[in-house]
Amino acid sequence: MNDVPATMRQLRSLVTPDGELRLSVATVDTPRPGPREVLVRVEAAPVNPSDLGLLLAMADVSAAVAGGSVDEPIVTAPIAEPVMRSLAPRIGTAMPVGNEGAGVVVAAGESPEAQALLGRTVGFAGGATYGEFCLASPRMCLPLPEGAESVDGASSFVNPLTALGMVETMRREGHAGLVHTAAASNLGQMLNRICLADGVPLVNIVRRPEQAELLREQGALHVCDSSEPTFEADLVAALEATHATLAFDAVGGGQLASQILNAMERAVVSPDAPYSRYGSDVHKQVYIYGALDPRPIELRRRFGFAWGVGGWLLTPFLARSSGEDLARLRQRVVDELTTTFASHYTDQISLAEALEVGTLQRYARQATGEKFLLRPQR
Amino acid sequence: MNDVPATMRQLRSLVTPDGELRLSVATVDTPRPGPREVLVRVEAAPVNPSDLGLLLAMADVSAAVAGGSVDEPIVTAPIAEPVMRSLAPRIGTAMPVGNEGAGVVVAAGESPEAQALLGRTVGFAGGATYGEFCLASPRMCLPLPEGAESVDGASSFVNPLTALGMVETMRREGHAGLVHTAAASNLGQMLNRICLADGVPLVNIVRRPEQAELLREQGALHVCDSSEPTFEADLVAALEATHATLAFDAVGGGQLASQILNAMERAVVSPDAPYSRYGSDVHKQVYIYGALDPRPIELRRRFGFAWGVGGWLLTPFLARSSGEDLARLRQRVVDELTTTFASHYTDQISLAEALEVGTLQRYARQATGEKFLLRPQR
Repeated sequence: MNDVPATMRQLRSLVTPDGELRLSVATVDTPRPGPREVLVRVEAAPVNPSDLGLLLAMADVSAAVAGGSVDEPIVTAPIAEPVMRSLAPRIGTAMPVGNEGAGVVVAAGESPEAQALLGRTVGFAGGATYGEFCLASPRMCLPLPEGAESVDGASSFVNPLTALGMVETMRREGHAGLVHTAAASNLGQMLNRICLADGVPLVNIVRRPEQAELLREQGALHVCDSSEPTFEADLVAALEATHATLAFDAVGGGQLASQILNAMERAVVSPDAPYSRYGSDVHKQVYIYGALDPRPIELRRRFGFAWGVGGWLLTPFLARSSGEDLARLRQRVVDELTTTFASHYTDQISLAEALEVGTLQRYARQATGEKFLLRPQR
Repeated sequence: MNDVPATMRQLRSLVTPDGELRLSVATVDTPRPGPREVLVRVEAAPVNPSDLGLLLAMADVSAAVAGGSVDEPIVTAPIAEPVMRSLAPRIGTAMPVGNEGAGVVVAAGESPEAQALLGRTVGFAGGATYGEFCLASPRMCLPLPEGAESVDGASSFVNPLTALGMVETMRREGHAGLVHTAAASNLGQMLNRICLADGVPLVNIVRRPEQAELLREQGALHVCDSSEPTFEADLVAALEATHATLAFDAVGGGQLASQILNAMERAVVSPDAPYSRYGSDVHKQVYIYGALDPRPIELRRRFGFAWGVGGWLLTPFLARSSGEDLARLRQRVVDELTTTFASHYTDQISLAEALEVGTLQRYARQATGEKFLLRPQR
């Protein structure tokens, strides 16, 4: 720990009891790794959709106001009353943020797994990567290949393993193809590249024509645009062609999950089949891994009884996976880091810049094609 | 087939293209068993909630009108336009009805399993038990013990195996207790008796005070009445006491499944636990096995990401079960036919009486405590 400073700057997200989000760059003690941990000097950390829920607490960022000083900037934004109720457990606690990042391991606990990483540049999943230093478990570190830089590995954990986890889940649960929503996202483009490489039939659902075009330019074979009047028929046709009976849904509100299940049932049941009020016996599954739409999920059941909707997260998936499976998935990420799993960033910002009102409003939009990278050492 | 008449009477349910339900007693050819089938002379068949969907096609039975003749009675009722859309696949086909019943095997195919049943009184699952004769697979027959009558065995298949299947599913999927909705039903009372006998913690959810009282009189330890203002707090308390994380829901519309999942999450998460926007990692599951409420299912997600909602049906459960498991479950039904699995009928009616407007309106209500038994030989 010789060359590690005693304190460090870390981004914090606080919800106050009177309904305000308060983002700050705090100066805190640099943590010391436990026996089975490493300390990473964070050089790059992406702003993923999965970070924004904790970071922004569903605040109205269009009304954000800058405050604090140049050295200790603050930004505040109001939170609507109904939203506050669901935030009750976090009120009053200034929380660190950031699910993944990359950097150099500058200190390590005494376990062999931790020691083996000392000095290596790693991609890793943390929970507090929006800071100058962050603790990590060796299990959640991916040593980058020789010559790779932190920027290349900043997004090497969450999106690559999530996309691979979707395909892996499809195989484990016996489905023949996949459906993905919000399919033009960085994650969606990655999944499309994996499915094309592996010959996995994939139905990409997007919300706008330009997103459909972007995916088609990248070789996507089945793209359905939910803004088109023909969406439901297009979806049934794509499902008939792919036999996909498993969907991963980032939207998680409104009727999209229900539309997918109903379309799967229509694709499965022959028009000539005898009527069964219990529906087909083909199991149709939607896993919800995001919450882009905060409305309730509304299921209109015309899809029989062989169906499931449930939550899906990367961490429990990894916990359910065998050591060999994990090693295989991680090796593939390393091997294809700058091809299949490459991420492109439109903006690189410091911790302080992340609190500038205009910048905040831009990354909060989660616009397709825009992706921000935090550089905590700047 | 010597003593079997060439034709028989059978109840039929028809949806006409112009939006009318038409129930009739048709005279049709008596079917002949295939090599692996038996023919049962049906002496008793219950009117279960699971039969009413196919039988009544969600028609407005308050507007039912009698027709036909004494020998060939008919009853008709209008079907609302939005309902008609979901019935499209069955329009124009006069469908036989009836999921289970009991009677004497009067003819059998050549297979040893079929021949072994000849002359036996069996409870069985069919699909056309509302008729004088019905084909069945030996797999779906339960030979009744010596001395048992058809009335004792009429409900020996669907409700007993469904209730046992719920407990079995709980054990297979690693849950510690059960939640059941519409818990004062015939099935619910059976499940309560099984759980009390087996020491399985059970939370019974009912909709009216008299249903709560009925279950408490039968020894139920945890009863939550959704009509009480304290329902949600009562449910959380019962879930804390039972550690139940699996629910079977017969309602399947509105917010009940969501309320159960949210209450499970509250029961699982300690008030002192650090905030996680992903929720607890305890898997919470609701299986929907009915559709008492035809509205969409509305899920208001405050229950994290470790959750599932899905369909559950008896037949696929049986198909997933090993031969030994099935034999064990069936033997228990036979052993406890007139105790744990006893059904009580308030009305016994002939096929023609099932088409009388007043009778039809009574069994369509599915009132707690009322249960009808069809006697097709009358």
